[in-house]
Amino acid sequence: MLATLLHAPGDIRVEEVPDAELHGADEAVVRVVAACICGSDLWPYRGITSVSGPTRIGHEFVGVVEAVGDGVSKVRVGDFVIAPFYVCDNICINCRNSVSTSCLQGGSWGSRRGGHQVDGGQGELVRVPLADGTLVPVRGPVDAALVPHLLTLSDVMGTGHHAALSAGVRAGSTVAVVGDGAVGLCAILAAKRLGAERIVAMSRHADRQAIAREFGATDVVEERGDAGAARIRELFDGIGADAVLEAVGTKESMDQALRSARPGGIVGFVGVPNGGAELPIGRMFSTNVGVRGGVAPVRGYIEEFLPEVLDGSLTPGRVFDLELPLADAAEGYAAMDARRATKVLLRP
Amino acid sequence: MLATLLHAPGDIRVEEVPDAELHGADEAVVRVVAACICGSDLWPYRGITSVSGPTRIGHEFVGVVEAVGDGVSKVRVGDFVIAPFYVCDNICINCRNSVSTSCLQGGSWGSRRGGHQVDGGQGELVRVPLADGTLVPVRGPVDAALVPHLLTLSDVMGTGHHAALSAGVRAGSTVAVVGDGAVGLCAILAAKRLGAERIVAMSRHADRQAIAREFGATDVVEERGDAGAARIRELFDGIGADAVLEAVGTKESMDQALRSARPGGIVGFVGVPNGGAELPIGRMFSTNVGVRGGVAPVRGYIEEFLPEVLDGSLTPGRVFDLELPLADAAEGYAAMDARRATKVLLRP
Repeated sequence: MLATLLHAPGDIRVEEVPDAELHGADEAVVRVVAACICGSDLWPYRGITSVSGPTRIGHEFVGVVEAVGDGVSKVRVGDFVIAPFYVCDNICINCRNSVSTSCLQGGSWGSRRGGHQVDGGQGELVRVPLADGTLVPVRGPVDAALVPHLLTLSDVMGTGHHAALSAGVRAGSTVAVVGDGAVGLCAILAAKRLGAERIVAMSRHADRQAIAREFGATDVVEERGDAGAARIRELFDGIGADAVLEAVGTKESMDQALRSARPGGIVGFVGVPNGGAELPIGRMFSTNVGVRGGVAPVRGYIEEFLPEVLDGSLTPGRVFDLELPLADAAEGYAAMDARRATKVLLRP
Repeated sequence: MLATLLHAPGDIRVEEVPDAELHGADEAVVRVVAACICGSDLWPYRGITSVSGPTRIGHEFVGVVEAVGDGVSKVRVGDFVIAPFYVCDNICINCRNSVSTSCLQGGSWGSRRGGHQVDGGQGELVRVPLADGTLVPVRGPVDAALVPHLLTLSDVMGTGHHAALSAGVRAGSTVAVVGDGAVGLCAILAAKRLGAERIVAMSRHADRQAIAREFGATDVVEERGDAGAARIRELFDGIGADAVLEAVGTKESMDQALRSARPGGIVGFVGVPNGGAELPIGRMFSTNVGVRGGVAPVRGYIEEFLPEVLDGSLTPGRVFDLELPLADAAEGYAAMDARRATKVLLRP
């Protein structure tokens, strides 16, 4: 089978690897229908996080179940399934507490488990451990036009939603969103869906601003850093927004987020922290701005979104602006790295 | 009048100062009935925060209104009043958002305002700016036995409550409390009052453990640091508590708190941050443990607690274990510094 490997920073190759196979009774093998490239895949691609030799990459995919182990009962061969960006059993205490990213049995795509490769998703087939817990089946025929939307439930839509939930967004909230990548855009959509009254997108890119407005942004702020935060405060009574959704992960973006929240507000953060972005507790103390969020437990959100995607009322797949065959994954990485694309969909 | 001044670390004196006087139409002068020493007063006393010459100190008091300016309408001469540990107008947007510590007109006891001294509270009289917003009158005669309980509404009871609210404590929550000072003990009482099912006090002091249990602690953990956090996780299904209330303010106590919370849990922090306790965002990200809290907007909580204190059902004044005449304030500081006393009440 073909799969995408990162050999070194900037060096992405699609290569022949051994076919994914069942290695346990709780497993499934899924033939990938569509996968995508995540903003967080760019950290090792850019060499910001280390790369030690050829590594299977990717963690977002949808597909059709090709085989299941004897212990799998909730998904069946032939099911169209959505995979969250991690593996979980969906029954442990952390999963029951809605934090399936901390599943006691959980794991990652692209890792090794039980001595065998778990595939990354940017490939033709994927071995799925804990298939009953991890995979969400979509019953009935799936319209090809819905695939991009369903694929976002694998990560970015749920991650944007997690930022909004973590920040306590509800009907009437005022919201600012830091980051105009796919997650930031989905955070706008999620905030709108939760009833936010006013949503400010912080973006300098005309194309992304357009999607932001389509997703529910009422205002756009182009300034960044201190100037951006000052503009946000100005828009909200001089004090800032109730909820600020941070979808970047740098020290600068977190500072901007903290300065954009009103006293007593919350920063919901989902950007993978990068570059020693420790939080300034003195500032948080004096302003009562809280910080919640983290790696988003999207598995628990998929079933909530699914009916809305299937009936066409939720269209997060609008974040995809480049679709390529799997063989051209390298071009997809280059396009996202250069910000020529917001989010790239790959078809095996 | 007599007032307490900090001259240098360890050097507390009670001295004659000019009488407090009205300097604006919105002001009152209050004759202090009881004041107290706060754990945060120990930071400058210990020289951990800097002291630049003789400084009026104190920020918690109750008393009787002796004079009011022409613009004051909500408190009257002769009213028994509770002062929160800061000054606020109680009408600005931040006050309306329940963050009166960020009042747009707010200020501090012991500072200068409008060119004149605002007294610290550890003295005979206090000039109170924004009297209508700041002071909460207690109508009718006040039983002397209730004074210590009422005095805690000035700071520690409301601050403990803020930790619990910030951490989302509600009926059925599991809670761990880091810090067994007056605020930590009040945090236990507040968590119990909000319906927490199980509350673990982290304390090594027999006297404080006894108050903790009286206030609602179901368990006591004597270990600290990593060992303490491991014990907390062990007590709660191996994962930790839903809510951890941090009432110390050091890097060590915050680390202990973060490690004691379950994935997806919240640390409610009210300890004044001290010693560069920046928050480890990477750990927060991977565990989804949030951090909320800060300088507690206790003004907004006083009216909620008042009926319960007046009917005897809420008795936070149990945290006072030493009562001294104002003239002996220095002994009170020494006793708290040496942990011979949990909380000292001063009577002018």
